Amino acid sequence: MHPYGDAARAAIKRCQWIATRTEDPGRTTRTFLSPPMRDVCDDLRTWMETLGMSVRIDEAGNLRGRTGERPAVIIGSHLDTVPDAGPYDGVLGVVLGITLVQLLADRVLPVDIEVVGFSEEEGVRFGVPFIGSRALVGDAAQLLACTDAHGVSVREALQAHGLNPHEIANAQVSPAALAYLEFHIEQGPVLDLLAAPLGVVDAIAGQSRVELAFTGRCNHAGTTPMASRRDALAGAAEWIASVEQMAVATPGLVATVGRLQLTPNATNAISGRVLASLDVRHADDAQRRQAVDGMLATARTIADRRGLGLSHAQHLDQAAVRMAPELTDALARAVAATGRPVHHVISGAGHDAMIVARRVPSAMLFLRSPGGISHHPDERVLEDDVAAALEVGVHWLAHWGDRA
Amino acid sequence: MHPYGDAARAAIKRCQWIATRTEDPGRTTRTFLSPPMRDVCDDLRTWMETLGMSVRIDEAGNLRGRTGERPAVIIGSHLDTVPDAGPYDGVLGVVLGITLVQLLADRVLPVDIEVVGFSEEEGVRFGVPFIGSRALVGDAAQLLACTDAHGVSVREALQAHGLNPHEIANAQVSPAALAYLEFHIEQGPVLDLLAAPLGVVDAIAGQSRVELAFTGRCNHAGTTPMASRRDALAGAAEWIASVEQMAVATPGLVATVGRLQLTPNATNAISGRVLASLDVRHADDAQRRQAVDGMLATARTIADRRGLGLSHAQHLDQAAVRMAPELTDALARAVAATGRPVHHVISGAGHDAMIVARRVPSAMLFLRSPGGISHHPDERVLEDDVAAALEVGVHWLAHWGDRA
Repeated sequence: MHPYGDAARAAIKRCQWIATRTEDPGRTTRTFLSPPMRDVCDDLRTWMETLGMSVRIDEAGNLRGRTGERPAVIIGSHLDTVPDAGPYDGVLGVVLGITLVQLLADRVLPVDIEVVGFSEEEGVRFGVPFIGSRALVGDAAQLLACTDAHGVSVREALQAHGLNPHEIANAQVSPAALAYLEFHIEQGPVLDLLAAPLGVVDAIAGQSRVELAFTGRCNHAGTTPMASRRDALAGAAEWIASVEQMAVATPGLVATVGRLQLTPNATNAISGRVLASLDVRHADDAQRRQAVDGMLATARTIADRRGLGLSHAQHLDQAAVRMAPELTDALARAVAATGRPVHHVISGAGHDAMIVARRVPSAMLFLRSPGGISHHPDERVLEDDVAAALEVGVHWLAHWGDRA
Repeated sequence: MHPYGDAARAAIKRCQWIATRTEDPGRTTRTFLSPPMRDVCDDLRTWMETLGMSVRIDEAGNLRGRTGERPAVIIGSHLDTVPDAGPYDGVLGVVLGITLVQLLADRVLPVDIEVVGFSEEEGVRFGVPFIGSRALVGDAAQLLACTDAHGVSVREALQAHGLNPHEIANAQVSPAALAYLEFHIEQGPVLDLLAAPLGVVDAIAGQSRVELAFTGRCNHAGTTPMASRRDALAGAAEWIASVEQMAVATPGLVATVGRLQLTPNATNAISGRVLASLDVRHADDAQRRQAVDGMLATARTIADRRGLGLSHAQHLDQAAVRMAPELTDALARAVAATGRPVHHVISGAGHDAMIVARRVPSAMLFLRSPGGISHHPDERVLEDDVAAALEVGVHWLAHWGDRA
C-alpha cells in the first residue's frame, strides 16, 4: 500500500464528485462563471478553510487559497471543462494542490502555498482560452470586451457573477511568488505507451494555425471529363496526404488537418472551393516554422500543377514555452526520489503554466492518461499514478526547504 | 444570316424572359408546382394556342400541347430549375419544340407533334427528380407520398395546385407515340472544347453513388504523436487521390468525391470519422461497376494499412440508357444535312429522355454550353447553335415523312 494511496483515492473521488457539478445533467460541462462553477468554488473553499487556508475569489473568478502571507509556491490548474468532459482535466491539478496542503499540514514548510483554481482555460464560452491565468499575469483587460454566443461580454458576465471587472488588475499574482507548479493529465498516449506513470514537462510546444483556401471550378460531376476538371478537393486531398508524410518524417513534429469546409459539398458536384485548417506543433520554433513553410510550398506546387487558386492566412504563430530549468530539474530529482523512471516530455497542448510562465518560474508534471483519452467521459487516471504525483509533490516542496 | 436566325434569337429571348418567372426575386428559381411555374405554363399555353395547338396541364402538372390527334412525335424537356439557375437548362428544349411547330406551321407534316414541358426534373423540392417524366411513363404513383422540407406530400402539392393525384395515371403517354426528342444544353465542356455546336447523344451514362465511412480515433491534435494516430481524414485523403488517378486512367469514366462530412471537424482534433460520397459514371455499365469495385478495394487496402474502420453503402446503381439507334442515326444525318460536323457524345447527366426511353423510342441533341457552365446564372447558348439545332429539328421531322 502506497503511503499516499488513501490520499490518492480521496483525490480521485473528489474529482469524480466535482464532475457531477454540471450545467448539463447527465454529462460534465462547466464553463466560465456558470452556476456549477460557483458550486465547485464553494466546495473547495470550504475544504481549504478547514485546512486553515485563507480563501478568496479574485476579480477574474479564480479560486485562490493561501496557507499564509509569506512568499508562496503556487500550485494550480483550471476548474472549467469542455462540453461532455472527463473528471480530471484541470480539476485534478487543483485537487492535488489542496491535497498536498492537507498532507503537509503537520509540517513546518519553508514557504507558503497558494492553490489556484483557474476560472477559465478551455475557451468554450468566449472562444478565447486562458482567461483565468491571463488575469493572473495582468493580461486580461483586453479580453473584457469579448462576447459569448449570446452577445454577453466578459465584463458583463463578471458583473453578473458579482465580480468587479474594473479591478481585474487586482487578480495579478504577487511579485513575491516563487514558482508555479501544475499537475495535469497528459491528454495524450505517450506516457501510457511507455508504461510510465509520470512525465516531467520540459516545454509546451509552439503552435502554428493556418487556414488554406484551394479554389477550383465547381462543375457537374457527370458532365465534366476528368481532363477538364479543376477539383479543389482533389488538390486538397493530395496536399493533406503530403502534410502527413512531412510530419511523419520530422521527429517531434505533429501536423493535423482537422477541419475542411467544401463548397458546394454536394455528391454530384466537383468542389469549387475547399478551406482546410492546418495545425502544426513542435518544441523548437524554428523547426515548426520551417515545417509550415514546407507545407505551404507543397500546397503551392500542387495548386499550380492543377490550375487551382491558393491563398492562406496564418491565425496563430505561438512560440514554444520552456518550463523553468531549475524547477524542472528539481521535479526530475523528485520523481527519481520516488524510485520511478524519469521521463521528460513535451506538452503538445497548451496549459495555464504556459501563461503563468510569463511572470512566475513554472513547471508541470504530467500524469499518464490511460489510452491517451481526454476531453471525453472515459478520461481516467490510475490511483497509483496519483499517489506517485503526490509523493513527487511532497519531495518537490521539500526542495524549497533546501533552498531556504 | 442563318434562315432560322430570327427564330433562334426569339427563342433565346423567350428563355430569358421565362427566367424572370421566379420564386426568388433577382435570381431564377422555379420549383415543382410553384406559382411562377403556373405563370410559365400560362405563357406557353397562350403561345401554343395561337399556333392552333390544343393544350392541357396533365395530372402531374406537365404542360402538354398537340398539333393534332394523329400519332405524334414528342418534343420536350423540363420547365423547373435548380436554385439560382441559368435561363436555358430544360426550358430551351420546350421553347425549341414550340418554335419548330411555329416554323413548320405552313407545311403539311406526316405526323403530329406533341410538345411537353415537364413539371419537375431537378429534384429540388422533393429530393426525387423526374417527377414529370415518370408520370409520363406511368411510374409516378409511388412518388405521391414523398414529402418536401415542410412535410407537404407530392399528393397534397398536386391537390393544392388544383390537380387530381388520383388520376395521375392519365398523364401517361399515348401508346401510339412515335418518338421522343429532347434538345438540351450540354451542361459540360466537351462540345465547347471541340468547337462543335451540336452533339448527338448516343447514351446517357450509368451512375453509381456510394457513401463510404472511414472510422479512426478522434484525438487531440497537439498531444497525439503521428505514430499513434488513426486519422480518418488522412485515410480518406489518400483514397480521394487514388479515386482521381483511377478515373483519369479509364477512358470515358468520371469519378467524383464531392461531399465530405468530418467528425468532429475541428482545427485541433484528429478526425474520428469521415463520410465521403463517391459518384461514378460511364456509358458502359460493366466498366462502371468494375471501377467502383476497384475504388472500394483501394479504400479497404488503405483502411486496413492505417487501422481504420471502413464501411460503405451503395445508394444508386443506375444502368446506362442507350438512345434509340434509328432515331440517333436520323439525328446524325440531320446534323450532317446542315453541313455541320457530327459529334456523338455521352451524356454524363441524367435527363428526361432517360425516363421517357422506357416507353417511347428516344433521342437527344445537345447544344454546346460555352465554358461548360450550367446551373448558374452565367449559363449561355450561342444564337448560331440554336439556329443549327432548329435546322436539325426541321430535317429530323422531315425524316418522319420519308417513313410515312
